[in-house]
Amino acid sequence: MLKIIKIGGGIIDDQVALHTFLQAFAKIKDPKILVHGGGKGASNLLNKLGIQPNMIDGRRVTDAETLEVITGLYAGNINKSIVALLQQAGCNALGLSGADGNAIQATKRPVKTIDYGLVGDLGSDAVNATLFNNLLKLGITPICCAITHDGHGQLFNTNADTIASTIAMALAKHTDVELNFCFDKIGVLRDIDDESSLIPSIDYTHYQKLKEEGVIFEGMIPKLDNAFEVIQAGVKNVCLVHAKNINSEIKTILC
Amino acid sequence: MLKIIKIGGGIIDDQVALHTFLQAFAKIKDPKILVHGGGKGASNLLNKLGIQPNMIDGRRVTDAETLEVITGLYAGNINKSIVALLQQAGCNALGLSGADGNAIQATKRPVKTIDYGLVGDLGSDAVNATLFNNLLKLGITPICCAITHDGHGQLFNTNADTIASTIAMALAKHTDVELNFCFDKIGVLRDIDDESSLIPSIDYTHYQKLKEEGVIFEGMIPKLDNAFEVIQAGVKNVCLVHAKNINSEIKTILC
Repeated sequence: MLKIIKIGGGIIDDQVALHTFLQAFAKIKDPKILVHGGGKGASNLLNKLGIQPNMIDGRRVTDAETLEVITGLYAGNINKSIVALLQQAGCNALGLSGADGNAIQATKRPVKTIDYGLVGDLGSDAVNATLFNNLLKLGITPICCAITHDGHGQLFNTNADTIASTIAMALAKHTDVELNFCFDKIGVLRDIDDESSLIPSIDYTHYQKLKEEGVIFEGMIPKLDNAFEVIQAGVKNVCLVHAKNINSEIKTILC
Repeated sequence: MLKIIKIGGGIIDDQVALHTFLQAFAKIKDPKILVHGGGKGASNLLNKLGIQPNMIDGRRVTDAETLEVITGLYAGNINKSIVALLQQAGCNALGLSGADGNAIQATKRPVKTIDYGLVGDLGSDAVNATLFNNLLKLGITPICCAITHDGHGQLFNTNADTIASTIAMALAKHTDVELNFCFDKIGVLRDIDDESSLIPSIDYTHYQKLKEEGVIFEGMIPKLDNAFEVIQAGVKNVCLVHAKNINSEIKTILC
């Protein structure tokens, strides 16, 4: 089964946790793809360069200057550090932005009330499945950063969760796919303060019940809504897992 | 014939010239690889970030902070801009640092009198020819930046001319290779101020004569010495050419 694993900013910002995770990731025997977010480095670097963050409703507007900083950071620093560490760990990693090999083509987010700037949205045909399949066949592990392009020379900032989901759905047309979202909990907990209350698996009916009971609420709802859409589109499992448990059974499997 | 083309900082710093070159590069029908240098952006960015350049005898010492800046710039900004523009121009470009797919493995330059820091030197087995051949077979055009790795998690700054030469020599074992160095002249000129004095081709005997005559001197001597070593190692032709003439016959062919 092809495993697609998404790691977020928290782990990118924690060198020790990142090293530990990459060692575990390298050991996964199945074909695999890593998708990584950016972490706090972008804000730090923008501050150092005196570029004022432009936030609307808590979301960053990506102007040209900001895009330049995050492209360097995501596709350059973070991506190449991860690739070099995975090579060390014996995993034949190869970094990709969406432009590389036309891996992921996006369209600029349409301006409704807010112009988020150079942010790319992904359609259902965004992913170049042929490229990913060809690389995987060569024994190469693609490492995707959250930068895409429009095919007309423009790079975009794109949500890493969306990239992971869209790759998973595209490749599910060709093979069995398991999508893992690493986050700060060990999975969905009945009691958020008690790890022993981990719910090992949730199907769609169970999910509706858990929402009614208030076990799943707030920020988890869009995450799980998205996960069940991904499953609906053909992905076998979507897992919510702590990065430290990527090679264990400690996780919540949505199916 | 596989064409390997190296562009330097001058063209990277000139957006119009870069666009024109990339359009021409995309039109090359033969399989091709682009190797690019860095340009002045690194010094500008280091200045903005308040990182003092550490120069010894006019050469930059690459400390960890400097490596971070140039990795972001070379492997992130410059590489992904070029890849996105080539995708626009219909060329299926894919960017590589030396870490990606273990494309180019280097060793830290040994400290003799001077420690240049995180600078990687390339041995004769530095290049992963299998990776390049596999990508080329898939119709992918590799775009290489001047960042390598040591296989143990460390990235390095590496001279782009050396990368281009080493790739050319490695791939010459598998196929006919032409290596093109783009520079600020249209080729080797008898009279440096007169483009009509272009010498269209130079073999090794001719080169010795031109050195004796003082036609080739100073900075051109190491360039041409290197070129003839590359030819000695099996590369068919090494061309000195202006980027604007990449698709024409206006060049000096060393053979």
